[in-house]
Amino acid sequence: MLESITQPTEKLLLANWMRIAGRTALGDYLALTARPDVLSFALGLPAAELFPAQDFIAAALRVVASDPGALQYGPPLLSLKKHIVSLMAGRGVRCTQEQVFVTTGAQQALNLLARMLLDQHGEVITESLTYPGLQQVIEPYQPRLLSVPTDAKTGMDVDALEALLAGGARPAFIYAIPSGHNPLGIEMSAAKRHRLVELAKSYGVPIIEDDPYGHIYYGDSPPLPLRALDEQWVFYTGSFSKILAPALRVGWTIVPEWLAHKLSNVKEASDLNTATFSQRALSGYLDTGALPAHLASLRREYKSRRDAMLGALAEYLPFEAEWNEPLSGFFIWLKLPESVDTDALLREAVESERVAFVPGMAFAVNNDGTGGNCLRLSYSNCSPQKIEEGIIRLARALNIASGASAVSHWACITYPGRSPQ
Amino acid sequence: MLESITQPTEKLLLANWMRIAGRTALGDYLALTARPDVLSFALGLPAAELFPAQDFIAAALRVVASDPGALQYGPPLLSLKKHIVSLMAGRGVRCTQEQVFVTTGAQQALNLLARMLLDQHGEVITESLTYPGLQQVIEPYQPRLLSVPTDAKTGMDVDALEALLAGGARPAFIYAIPSGHNPLGIEMSAAKRHRLVELAKSYGVPIIEDDPYGHIYYGDSPPLPLRALDEQWVFYTGSFSKILAPALRVGWTIVPEWLAHKLSNVKEASDLNTATFSQRALSGYLDTGALPAHLASLRREYKSRRDAMLGALAEYLPFEAEWNEPLSGFFIWLKLPESVDTDALLREAVESERVAFVPGMAFAVNNDGTGGNCLRLSYSNCSPQKIEEGIIRLARALNIASGASAVSHWACITYPGRSPQ
Repeated sequence: MLESITQPTEKLLLANWMRIAGRTALGDYLALTARPDVLSFALGLPAAELFPAQDFIAAALRVVASDPGALQYGPPLLSLKKHIVSLMAGRGVRCTQEQVFVTTGAQQALNLLARMLLDQHGEVITESLTYPGLQQVIEPYQPRLLSVPTDAKTGMDVDALEALLAGGARPAFIYAIPSGHNPLGIEMSAAKRHRLVELAKSYGVPIIEDDPYGHIYYGDSPPLPLRALDEQWVFYTGSFSKILAPALRVGWTIVPEWLAHKLSNVKEASDLNTATFSQRALSGYLDTGALPAHLASLRREYKSRRDAMLGALAEYLPFEAEWNEPLSGFFIWLKLPESVDTDALLREAVESERVAFVPGMAFAVNNDGTGGNCLRLSYSNCSPQKIEEGIIRLARALNIASGASAVSHWACITYPGRSPQ
Repeated sequence: MLESITQPTEKLLLANWMRIAGRTALGDYLALTARPDVLSFALGLPAAELFPAQDFIAAALRVVASDPGALQYGPPLLSLKKHIVSLMAGRGVRCTQEQVFVTTGAQQALNLLARMLLDQHGEVITESLTYPGLQQVIEPYQPRLLSVPTDAKTGMDVDALEALLAGGARPAFIYAIPSGHNPLGIEMSAAKRHRLVELAKSYGVPIIEDDPYGHIYYGDSPPLPLRALDEQWVFYTGSFSKILAPALRVGWTIVPEWLAHKLSNVKEASDLNTATFSQRALSGYLDTGALPAHLASLRREYKSRRDAMLGALAEYLPFEAEWNEPLSGFFIWLKLPESVDTDALLREAVESERVAFVPGMAFAVNNDGTGGNCLRLSYSNCSPQKIEEGIIRLARALNIASGASAVSHWACITYPGRSPQ
């Protein structure tokens, strides 16, 4: 009854955005850096050896043993929402359980918020260099993407943002990563945070504040999240992926209560509900009260890795390189002389030295070459010893890639204030 | 620095589809039926007491103990894909690991496939009564929804489908639930399955075959899934939610290999990856070889529940009611005389008799009153004793709701072949 000839599905008509979508640069890079013999600073992975695996599995055992409903479908767990409210209080954010919306990781939170706010061909404002996962979220909407630069010390250029808004831009949302910026490792200044929120309020444009790294800070008094400054126009997204374990896929967003109700439908369409088993086990772990000490130990450990990388960069990298000193998160942004193409450098580094990073271009929203001489280093997933070894290899790769001519070229470049800030 | 007056976010501009989206009828119904004192046939929940909780948690323990990477981000697990290939072989479907794409439950699979195939304002063909979760998936696309009727014995009206296609309809996809239809509990005939696949091939329109209940069949030789008939135009979705435990949120779709690559980007944007912990624990459980016996025991148990409901319906329901005998899945579709409004009946049933179901209207794609005198009963989540008790209550509620006049009206209606089929 069936025809024997197989019709090729190449005839299949995909949605318009899929027909023009390219493979992401990041995807190519990650494939290149995933070789097992490569010492990689590419992925922003938390360190698996720091997961509280035994405590978590013990909690999981308890919840399943006490209630077979732990494996059933279920609504968002109230006890987990309570824990999130406490966790947010630790960041200076006051919110209610009704404003907390549990998601399948923070990535899903971004996805649901975009679904709720963004029309096809709508406008979005981001920084010129930003988290590629946000770019993936909005790509199907074929949006008009407006971008603003980022200052290496103080974060998003809010003057440029104001100029866009005053010029008539009415984006569905402004996307910001005020703490532990990915990829730039920058902390937005408190003054800019206030100004950003004021702009959002006066122009009636919501901000999506992406804060997966907010709890991993290294100073004594990290600036308050935007959500602490306004509860109507700032939609916060948070995650347990960096502070506990990503394999659970549990994150959250904090939105006004009336929006949380609307999000329920969008969430249901997406994956019905967030894995009850993850939610219960997580809540069971948090019930033990172990989180604050765990967070303190994560901050200590990631700080020692950050310091190891900063130290190695200062010791081994050429004078002309610039970088920041991150006050939270996992990333250092390394700026090399304009003559260096970090895309080519990555290939050289992987081939000759077995060390990897992500070229800056992978984070550029406009594909205009921004970040072409920069790269992102993640220090979260290697021991301090490995970090030093990796930076030595990177320095060697830089020498090889630069060659004699580039080296001499470099020698005449100086950057004011080049030393680690 | 902040204004003290809170600006109401009601000024916030949501995406166009959100501004016109209503609360779903199903949402209202489920809120009504969730009261703890109500004996509910409303939700298509698997029975929690049938989950292999101990074996699953033992497997979870083993994988976490042996590898801290079990709590890390991770790509789709190859060993899990192998298990899915075997599971599909049990349904008569030949597929490769490269064609298996792991998702956060089957709901996400529907979501990703729609994202890949459907343009804003595009066309979709479904049955007039279908799974509301598909309706939720496509709602943001504001699609032109074309629908075809369903025959109570043989499933989707493929003549009507052919008429639509011959008339120029070019939907992004045809959505079908050939086995254990939700809400109708119908099995599509083998002849219609072949014809449906032929139509898809000759018109170049893909079919999304939703098969969450396919492994829960009660006959000896269930008809082959559509995917067994064609591997290019049938995109199959399956789930562990009904056969193991929904709290894991692990499902899959089977698509041509070149599409699986494209789906990766859409998936990443959605939630990065499917919970590694769920994937590992699940794969660890499947490694033990316990699944075939577990499936056999699920089929026995759900069959005894189905039979209990069929028996009770035959014993207690008025002569004028019609229903089907499901050959797979969790649902019985009950058709009452045209004079009965099952929306009103639900309110009466919950109030007076503490028994619940879902009114048929909740499944109608066109909001045209289709299914207004029908209701969906789920027998999956109650013991046979509870099922009998619930049907007795439902019969009493019907008597109350019908009142004297309706009862006498009923008395003069006869349905040819009314007895349980």
